[in-house]
Amino acid sequence: MATNKNVYFFGGGKAEGKGHMKELLGGKGAGLAEMTNIGLPVPAGFTITTEVCDYYFKHNTRYPAGFSKEVIKNLKKLERLVGKKLGDAKDPLLVSVRSGAAQSMPGMMETILNLGLNDKSIEGLAEKTNNRRFALDAYRRCILMYGSTAMNVEREKFDDELEGVKNEFTRKRLKRKNGLILDTDVNESELDILIERQKAVYKAETGEDFPQDPIKQLWGAIDAVIGSWMVDKAVTYRRLENMTGLKGTGVNIVQMVFGNKGEDSGTGVCFTRDPNSGKNIFYGDLLMNAQGEDVVAGIRTPLHLDDLRKIMPAAYKQLNAVRLKLEAHYKDMQDIEFTIEEGKLYILQTRTGKRSPAATFKIAVDMVREKLTKEHEAIARITAKDIEGLFYPVIDPSISLSDLKKHLFANGIEAVPGAAVGKIVFNAKDAEDWCDQGEDVILVRQETSPEDVGGMHAAKGILTATGGKTSHAAVVARGWGKSCIVGCSELQIDSNEKTMTARGITLREGDFITLNGSTGDVFSTGLDLTKPEPPAAYKSLMRWADKARTLKVRTNADTPYDATRAIALGAEGIGLCRTEHMFFDTQERRLAIQKMIVAEDAETRQSAIDELLPYQKKDFEGIFTAMAGKPVTIRLLDPPLHEFVPHRDAEQKRLANELDIPLKQVKQSIEKLRETNPMLGLRGARLSVSYPEILDMQVRAIIEAACDCRKKKIRVMPEIMFPLVIDAKEVALLAARTRKVADEIIKRRKVTVKYLIGTMIEVPRAALLADEIAGVAEFFSFGTNDLTQFTFALSRDDAGRFLPDYVDDKKAGILKADPFQSLDQDGVGMLVKMGLKKGRETRPNLKVGICGEHGGDPDSVEFCHLLGLDYVSCSPFRVPIARLAAAQAAIKYPRKSKKAAGKKACAPKKSKKASK
Amino acid sequence: MATNKNVYFFGGGKAEGKGHMKELLGGKGAGLAEMTNIGLPVPAGFTITTEVCDYYFKHNTRYPAGFSKEVIKNLKKLERLVGKKLGDAKDPLLVSVRSGAAQSMPGMMETILNLGLNDKSIEGLAEKTNNRRFALDAYRRCILMYGSTAMNVEREKFDDELEGVKNEFTRKRLKRKNGLILDTDVNESELDILIERQKAVYKAETGEDFPQDPIKQLWGAIDAVIGSWMVDKAVTYRRLENMTGLKGTGVNIVQMVFGNKGEDSGTGVCFTRDPNSGKNIFYGDLLMNAQGEDVVAGIRTPLHLDDLRKIMPAAYKQLNAVRLKLEAHYKDMQDIEFTIEEGKLYILQTRTGKRSPAATFKIAVDMVREKLTKEHEAIARITAKDIEGLFYPVIDPSISLSDLKKHLFANGIEAVPGAAVGKIVFNAKDAEDWCDQGEDVILVRQETSPEDVGGMHAAKGILTATGGKTSHAAVVARGWGKSCIVGCSELQIDSNEKTMTARGITLREGDFITLNGSTGDVFSTGLDLTKPEPPAAYKSLMRWADKARTLKVRTNADTPYDATRAIALGAEGIGLCRTEHMFFDTQERRLAIQKMIVAEDAETRQSAIDELLPYQKKDFEGIFTAMAGKPVTIRLLDPPLHEFVPHRDAEQKRLANELDIPLKQVKQSIEKLRETNPMLGLRGARLSVSYPEILDMQVRAIIEAACDCRKKKIRVMPEIMFPLVIDAKEVALLAARTRKVADEIIKRRKVTVKYLIGTMIEVPRAALLADEIAGVAEFFSFGTNDLTQFTFALSRDDAGRFLPDYVDDKKAGILKADPFQSLDQDGVGMLVKMGLKKGRETRPNLKVGICGEHGGDPDSVEFCHLLGLDYVSCSPFRVPIARLAAAQAAIKYPRKSKKAAGKKACAPKKSKKASK
Repeated sequence: MATNKNVYFFGGGKAEGKGHMKELLGGKGAGLAEMTNIGLPVPAGFTITTEVCDYYFKHNTRYPAGFSKEVIKNLKKLERLVGKKLGDAKDPLLVSVRSGAAQSMPGMMETILNLGLNDKSIEGLAEKTNNRRFALDAYRRCILMYGSTAMNVEREKFDDELEGVKNEFTRKRLKRKNGLILDTDVNESELDILIERQKAVYKAETGEDFPQDPIKQLWGAIDAVIGSWMVDKAVTYRRLENMTGLKGTGVNIVQMVFGNKGEDSGTGVCFTRDPNSGKNIFYGDLLMNAQGEDVVAGIRTPLHLDDLRKIMPAAYKQLNAVRLKLEAHYKDMQDIEFTIEEGKLYILQTRTGKRSPAATFKIAVDMVREKLTKEHEAIARITAKDIEGLFYPVIDPSISLSDLKKHLFANGIEAVPGAAVGKIVFNAKDAEDWCDQGEDVILVRQETSPEDVGGMHAAKGILTATGGKTSHAAVVARGWGKSCIVGCSELQIDSNEKTMTARGITLREGDFITLNGSTGDVFSTGLDLTKPEPPAAYKSLMRWADKARTLKVRTNADTPYDATRAIALGAEGIGLCRTEHMFFDTQERRLAIQKMIVAEDAETRQSAIDELLPYQKKDFEGIFTAMAGKPVTIRLLDPPLHEFVPHRDAEQKRLANELDIPLKQVKQSIEKLRETNPMLGLRGARLSVSYPEILDMQVRAIIEAACDCRKKKIRVMPEIMFPLVIDAKEVALLAARTRKVADEIIKRRKVTVKYLIGTMIEVPRAALLADEIAGVAEFFSFGTNDLTQFTFALSRDDAGRFLPDYVDDKKAGILKADPFQSLDQDGVGMLVKMGLKKGRETRPNLKVGICGEHGGDPDSVEFCHLLGLDYVSCSPFRVPIARLAAAQAAIKYPRKSKKAAGKKACAPKKSKKASK
Repeated sequence: MATNKNVYFFGGGKAEGKGHMKELLGGKGAGLAEMTNIGLPVPAGFTITTEVCDYYFKHNTRYPAGFSKEVIKNLKKLERLVGKKLGDAKDPLLVSVRSGAAQSMPGMMETILNLGLNDKSIEGLAEKTNNRRFALDAYRRCILMYGSTAMNVEREKFDDELEGVKNEFTRKRLKRKNGLILDTDVNESELDILIERQKAVYKAETGEDFPQDPIKQLWGAIDAVIGSWMVDKAVTYRRLENMTGLKGTGVNIVQMVFGNKGEDSGTGVCFTRDPNSGKNIFYGDLLMNAQGEDVVAGIRTPLHLDDLRKIMPAAYKQLNAVRLKLEAHYKDMQDIEFTIEEGKLYILQTRTGKRSPAATFKIAVDMVREKLTKEHEAIARITAKDIEGLFYPVIDPSISLSDLKKHLFANGIEAVPGAAVGKIVFNAKDAEDWCDQGEDVILVRQETSPEDVGGMHAAKGILTATGGKTSHAAVVARGWGKSCIVGCSELQIDSNEKTMTARGITLREGDFITLNGSTGDVFSTGLDLTKPEPPAAYKSLMRWADKARTLKVRTNADTPYDATRAIALGAEGIGLCRTEHMFFDTQERRLAIQKMIVAEDAETRQSAIDELLPYQKKDFEGIFTAMAGKPVTIRLLDPPLHEFVPHRDAEQKRLANELDIPLKQVKQSIEKLRETNPMLGLRGARLSVSYPEILDMQVRAIIEAACDCRKKKIRVMPEIMFPLVIDAKEVALLAARTRKVADEIIKRRKVTVKYLIGTMIEVPRAALLADEIAGVAEFFSFGTNDLTQFTFALSRDDAGRFLPDYVDDKKAGILKADPFQSLDQDGVGMLVKMGLKKGRETRPNLKVGICGEHGGDPDSVEFCHLLGLDYVSCSPFRVPIARLAAAQAAIKYPRKSKKAAGKKACAPKKSKKASK
């Protein structure tokens, strides 16, 4: 139901509406009111409320009583204020009629510009702008827009006339037989002809003349804008975007201003600070005696703001005052569109300005120092992308777009941002060999498997033809922050011939390529890269973020090197140390685990296991040393054993030789490991149940390494974790065995080593029975990668073929986001919530975190904060993002800190470093 | 804490204890009291309560005050009653001392027989039995049992003496140089020597003589029996069997009676009815002047009960009276052990008699007719195994055990009961070809895949080297009730050479074998089979069961043939019709779907789909006709597409020829379908989302078939079901498409066809979000097979390697049962419960069932009854089992029928036939 007031005026320094009235006035209307109220020189106008739109559709497309009077009253007020009249033949008032709902629906609804033009007023406009061609062009556009939107004439009919005029007249005049004729090639007289023809179309289609009465035009335009609220595409858009509860669109009728009315007019765009460096200097361009279109078209070289200061010091002064006012008001760097009409400054639009990642930090921190904003506001303003942008190498920004285009070879899915350059190799072994010889290489594979990990590590970047953002290649590369493009389906790889082909070009082993992991572009040459250095502002801001957050941030790290890097990036512990990655590290290690796997008797198996012990122990010692007392959660062996064995003949032969057994036996052992669905097979805790001697060895390596560290006065906090558990009895069995091995060593070594025993919660059954499991486990780590796979019955490796359909709104649009990238809070999140609640019912001090991809996703981090988890763990490169997201969540939803602190009783005592 | 009364006497027609005092007296003690109280001539004796045992261990192995006096008082009472004295030289009272806890622990605790024998009383026993050898043998056994159990002398030491005597004396006497000497070969004088030597062992080991004082023997035996409660093996047994809350063991001291005291003595076993036919006739054997051992040994030919009637009419009459009394008391057929000592009848034991499946039904039904029991009791007495036993063919029971042993070739896991005979073939195609030529074949495979389904159907039985009870082979075969043995790991199959080898024997293609699917035995010859006919009593009992149950029973059937069979077995609808099985049926159908899959463009795909339409339509018409208005739940295409394409070169070539495209292209198309984890890949509803044209075709086939039936006045009730759904939006999308296709056809055909649209709930996320899904779905069917896989992260195909460890108590013992056989009520059951609750919160009339293996498992059926599901659906052969289980559950846990009936409002109106 419409209220009494249907129209809100703005202009002359004050507005009837306010900035917060988005629901009533729409976003654009509220913005215009806001700018007016803070004293900006905004073109005047008035806004019809969204309630009118609501009433209109609820009352069979009729307006509320008294509405039309209200509109006319406001129009008169506008004419009085600006001193011009609609349709005036000398100096006509022209207006735009624009839609604007409470939420932005870009391109969905109608806009009509230059309203008020007719056969008479056009001449006034021509004279005033001293540009009859401009005036004619505005008029023909006005007829087209009005005719097609208000009167439903097919737009094509008008366009056909333009083409006709071009071919009949312009082409001949320019003597251009076949070439393209641009709209701007059409001259004044041709436009005169076109306008007449368009009017004829209008009459033929509507049965009446194009209205010369501006008031009739105005009402037609208002009807059209309100009517566009219910057209199919807008309704569909709102449904897909889940935009509910909107009343309708507002309608904004605004005075049009022109920057091309002479040398005392102009138009430009400026930023309140430098968007590249973030420095607090006024930054922008303008063109004198020009329209906005001319600025965009880039035909004329624009002036800088300094030039404006010289040419029109008053206008400059006014603009600079606007700049300061806007920053004081919006408390952020603004991007301003302005027009100067006959010496008078108009601000057409102001919005938050886009800026480089480095500038984002500098501006945020500077504004706190300038007391414009508070620390919490500065934190809220940073996004994950800003942080990402600080760390990854990028293609030298000075390389021209056309140079880039020339070398573009293919495009795939951007899996890990950042750029990489190197020579192409087609298998992991070559990658390692070439890397040993000092070459930078890019590993190109159809898809990668754990066998390739050595080569992936050696390569500068990874490119695969298949897979999605959570395929093996993407996940591993992301862990290392290594440039990676996946699912580049246009690639045809011939790994025997060692070539790859796309878009008709074939590249060979050893050719240079460049990956842009931020865009998915692959270039067929080696481009120069630059690596930005995080600015000082980054450090200040992250210090504030750490102060603000309550959620701890750990990292997923498998090596002392990764651990050290993660600490530098702010990690407070290791939330997931995957022991199996240690087995792939060198040829000897791989051979030892392969020996263990193909062993036919307990003795051979034990001897192979004994060979592995010193490697694991050494790795753990390195990690403990790097972490210096911060908690280290070590996951016991997880993947199916077949991931460790060679699948190629040559390697199988080598293994057979090494073990001195027939090749056939090696092949048989490997064949036995084949599983239909390895993800649901013999892996995780099941390995420890079936082969307890592996568990014994791993526990031994962990605890002996811990004892060695203690002897060297290095503090250690190992947390031993079982993956893929399904039952409390299973955990109890493994925990008992673990304690037996560990306690015996600790007793013998006569040192104090405290350790915790816990489990991954990554199988739905474990979440459902978490109360029982918490009776045995001292901590939980939600493995939301696998939990997502099982909860959705969705293999990460295979989802690439259909998951895009599920996520893409243009297709099925079933899911809000890829559940492997952002935690599915409805389904998987429900299990996490249940698991947490049940776990803490049994053990109130249960320490709970999540590890996996979601630990570095801001939305998921917020969810974890809300649930009351103790920590998230993510790959080293995502640690700053998680720290920021945790801070943002804590600011948005403050925790009752007392209660949260109480829950920490079970956690190891935190070192001062860790809480930094 | 012991109560005042520690010892309960029984004998002379009355007992101090009662039959229900199992907790206090143990099972055996309570049974003896019960038999005494109902007037059976039971040997007299007394029972020491379990509380004494409890007290004993709680008080550092001391007995309660006054206990020993109580024992002696009861012993005197026993001596008075039977008129004999312990240790008497003329006619000694002998007693047995036996353990007996409230729950049976077979073989775990101690028993000592013939207690009371010493150097003097042995002569009295010899004279009375007129068998000195028997008496001596009893004495040497008494020394052995007493020495080893009461005094912890190693049993081997006594055994060594027996071997010594055999070799020193018996062997010489019998002049048997190398052959085996039996215990019965040792004669009286040799037994005399043995007894002396055993006494010497006793003295050497214990430092004292074998006690000649019977009271000392008695106490030693009591101590030993009570002590055996806490020996390791008994403690372990109770832990593994989850036997908690037991106080201890009772001790039963019972007069021994002897059937070998002359021609007026004897011993025998009888059944109160014929255990083979179930007829109400007295059935049993006895031996005169003999011990129980002689009956078991089978050396002498026993007499029938009729003979006893002639020889000792009084004893017979008494025995027959016992028979009637027992049936009246226990209300079930009894198996009785009896002894006649010098004309006096003693009943030693009575228990529920084992019987054949046919007899089970006859006895249960007869007893209701005789008013001995009620219908509900009769129903409760039948087990799933009894029903199974009625239907499956069996190996001719007249074939001797030794003949069977001679042909035993291998043993595997019994997957589907029943026997099968045929010639070996090693691939599906041969199975089909040979079957076409009229041969009976057994299909032998390493493992089966959906490609083999045609051959599996053609074969009489299936044998695989790998897989468990829920492998592909087992599940498919079970659906057809086809004999199947899986996981026969000792088989070495060479499918190129077409041979299989086990235990050193190699069989070739075309050789006959016999499978016994009830035991897992494979025989290397063709044995005769017989197929039992279900008795009339079966029908009566199942009629009562149908009356009792509230849960409906549907079947999983994919063909008109299966549907017809299932109706004959009592199915009330189809709960799962798997449309994909229709595609495997013939070469043409397979080719059509393969064409569809390898199609590179929409047009080719559509033309292949169009080819499939008539096949599907015809199948549905047949099924609807067979079901005559009963509901038919049709699951749209579910399996990953790669299951439909050929993986062998020859077949790929054939496909390439048929489609007139290069083999390479076929290979590429097939390669593209390869998935790392097909179970979690592109299947189920995802197929319909990605290829909506397949859904269109299937819906068209269903609805057109339904319309055709309606034109013929056949009632139809199709329920269209989407598999593997994960989200309400997904269901909404597919439901909208389904309705569009269906309603258009119905409108065009101008008939009334009602149909429902629903979903499988088989992915954890669907159960978690069931409230949202029920907003769109009109029914749920819990697919607990897949739900188990995802909830456990456990692939049915791969679980064989480790799941046994998880289930086996001797190993990890983590799970109570194989979750694919019996629904995991704790974990998966929690999801089913949540899904049901949430679903009915949104849609109170939601119809809910389960389909899959669990629908035919009695425990799972009971769980479904308790949850309040509407129906279970299982393979045709399990339908009677499910009907019975549903009845048993309804009797055990009656539903409030009003409420249950209210929930049915959404179900299609049931026909009178359906409720039969």
